[in-house]
Amino acid sequence: MKILLPDTTDLDPDLPEGWEAVTIDARAEIPTEHHDAQVLVVWGASRRHLASAVENLHDLRLVQSLAAGVDGILEAGFADDVQIATGAGLHSLTVSEHTLGLLLSILRRLPEARDAQERHEWSDELGGMQPLNPEGRMTSLVGARVLIWGFGQIGQTLAPVLAALGAEVRGAARSAGERAGFEVLADDDVLKALPEVDILIDILPGGEATRGMIDAEVLAALPDHAVLINVGRGTTVDQQALREALEGGTLGAAALDVTDPEPLPAEDPLWDAPRLLITPHAAGGRPVGADERIRENLLALEGDGAIVQLADR
Amino acid sequence: MKILLPDTTDLDPDLPEGWEAVTIDARAEIPTEHHDAQVLVVWGASRRHLASAVENLHDLRLVQSLAAGVDGILEAGFADDVQIATGAGLHSLTVSEHTLGLLLSILRRLPEARDAQERHEWSDELGGMQPLNPEGRMTSLVGARVLIWGFGQIGQTLAPVLAALGAEVRGAARSAGERAGFEVLADDDVLKALPEVDILIDILPGGEATRGMIDAEVLAALPDHAVLINVGRGTTVDQQALREALEGGTLGAAALDVTDPEPLPAEDPLWDAPRLLITPHAAGGRPVGADERIRENLLALEGDGAIVQLADR
Ligand SMILES: NC(=O)c1ccc[n+]([C@@H]2O[C@H](COP(=O)([O-])OP(=O)(O)OC[C@H]3O[C@@H](n4cnc5c(N)ncnc54)[C@H](OP(=O)(O)O)[C@@H]3O)[C@@H](O)[C@H]2O)c1
Ligand SMILES: NC(=O)c1ccc[n+]([C@@H]2O[C@H](COP(=O)([O-])OP(=O)(O)OC[C@H]3O[C@@H](n4cnc5c(N)ncnc54)[C@H](OP(=O)(O)O)[C@@H]3O)[C@@H](O)[C@H]2O)c1
Repeated sequence: MKILLPDTTDLDPDLPEGWEAVTIDARAEIPTEHHDAQVLVVWGASRRHLASAVENLHDLRLVQSLAAGVDGILEAGFADDVQIATGAGLHSLTVSEHTLGLLLSILRRLPEARDAQERHEWSDELGGMQPLNPEGRMTSLVGARVLIWGFGQIGQTLAPVLAALGAEVRGAARSAGERAGFEVLADDDVLKALPEVDILIDILPGGEATRGMIDAEVLAALPDHAVLINVGRGTTVDQQALREALEGGTLGAAALDVTDPEPLPAEDPLWDAPRLLITPHAAGGRPVGADERIRENLLALEGDGAIVQLADR
Repeated sequence: MKILLPDTTDLDPDLPEGWEAVTIDARAEIPTEHHDAQVLVVWGASRRHLASAVENLHDLRLVQSLAAGVDGILEAGFADDVQIATGAGLHSLTVSEHTLGLLLSILRRLPEARDAQERHEWSDELGGMQPLNPEGRMTSLVGARVLIWGFGQIGQTLAPVLAALGAEVRGAARSAGERAGFEVLADDDVLKALPEVDILIDILPGGEATRGMIDAEVLAALPDHAVLINVGRGTTVDQQALREALEGGTLGAAALDVTDPEPLPAEDPLWDAPRLLITPHAAGGRPVGADERIRENLLALEGDGAIVQLADR
């Protein structure tokens, strides 16, 4: 049995008996001598690579993505009996970390601090005695009301960290309930909850169902001091509405790690929106625990347990 | 019984029976009609205010600081039978939050991202697929070896948050042992531990005992990729040695929320040290839970429990 590993990240899975691993170029077509592989691990694959897999890997049973979002693989056209496993969970720590970095940079006014530092200025406005909840501006997570829209692996990793820092955290997803000890709203109840939300964190997946979910109406329902962070997918935010809210002062600040399209074209006016921080899809990008996940899913293929993070098709 | 509250922060403690609260100007001398007070709450007090309290409050039993560091109060010369309670714990959340903001801003390269944004540049170097542990640079808390020097209220609040994000956390203090579930080294063992430390967080108090503890020797013992954060007191770091380490490339990056002196003079060369972020003592500055702490210590004064965070004198 053969598993094909991409050359785009360091992998060294402990394989079950009888498996052989081969590392191949994730940007190129699959070499003929490896058309007998049963498992393909995908990370940073080109379209051509995926198309060649669809066309040639006739014994393929599992496509193991190391990315949380598998839009590209789902669109590639693998046969129905090929299972597709997402890398959900492998990016929970890193994306949580980046989200927190973006959020705290805004709350703790680090860009302004850097500007003051450039002027050699010890700013009394940024430091010293501060009100805990200044009028019209969020400056701390203490007591902040946070809503995480898209409350899956990443959201559930991030939520307890925010709570430990003093925030009141809720989630939102397709259905309501309690998850990982946090209250989760259904999508339909989000709009009326927004006036009581100080910080909205978007960790929604891409695809048609979530397109433009953060639109002008959502942005208008948030308080003027609210902060929006998007680390999900760029398509989930109406970027023109976001720019208008920032320009019009009806949104406190925002940070986007994902945009639509990516890369964001140099001429896009979003780059210059006030109180907006953009990072170039830098939150995840480094699967953590991939070797263990690969082994787990190879064992599952052999009948030992269920495939972890099987994608809906 | 009378308690004097400062006008420098919003306070509304639920007082035990028989207590009366009066809010006074924390920058001015204590008004004569309030020289009968038993308790003085201190936040942002001027030297003149403290001197007037020392001289005139003859019934004084407790000075309740809302700051974690009480160097100024200890120096003011209160009579030996006046108890002094620090505000340790009231800043644990906010200082942890700021520390994390500084650290993640460095790790996640947010200043560079902002520069790229100004150039309308979607930087492939900052985003996309990344190595988890690039050579010579810390870019994530996942697997990072963190040492928190000064492992009190703040350190013990911060440590589990860092651990939840994937870091390996240890503390250091005057004596070794386990605290709050973390291994704590004694000061004497720090130097030999430093070569295995990726991130050193200084949350030491001020005073003579900690002066210059982070000196050239400590900085040299850290790996060249290490990150130093100081949110304790400026006096604990040899600033010239720090600047030289940054300029010489033997320290990865640093952030200081505290300096010596404060404000840092405009002509100090530290402002321009490479890979250094300075915030103007902005981490705490807003006591959280002060009303509850005041009530608790008034009850303790009346014999119900022990004074919380009594300072060593
Ligand atoms: N910026 C980056 O570098 C980066 C890195 C990794 C991942 N991501 C993004 O983050 C997303 C989430 O990752 P994850 O690991 O947390 O995935 P996950 O565990 O699959 O969680 C997805 C969450 O979104 C919810 N959801 C899905 N469709 C929805 C809809 N139409 N309306 C409302 N909620 C919906 C799901 O809830 P229900 O199923 O209960 O509705 C679930 O709570 C990924 O899909 C990817 O787009 C970004
Ligand atoms: N940047 C800001 O805005 C801000 C805000 C609040 C506080 N702070 C600073 O943070 C400091 C710590 O606050 P905290 O609430 O965590 O105080 P804390 O609970 O009193 O903790 C102080 C810690 O430092 C250790 N320590 C004291 N002297 C030491 C020495 N000579 N060598 C090694 N360790 C020593 C203590 O350990 P042992 O007693 O076991 O030795 C303890 O672990 C304050 O004193 C203040 O300077 C800064």
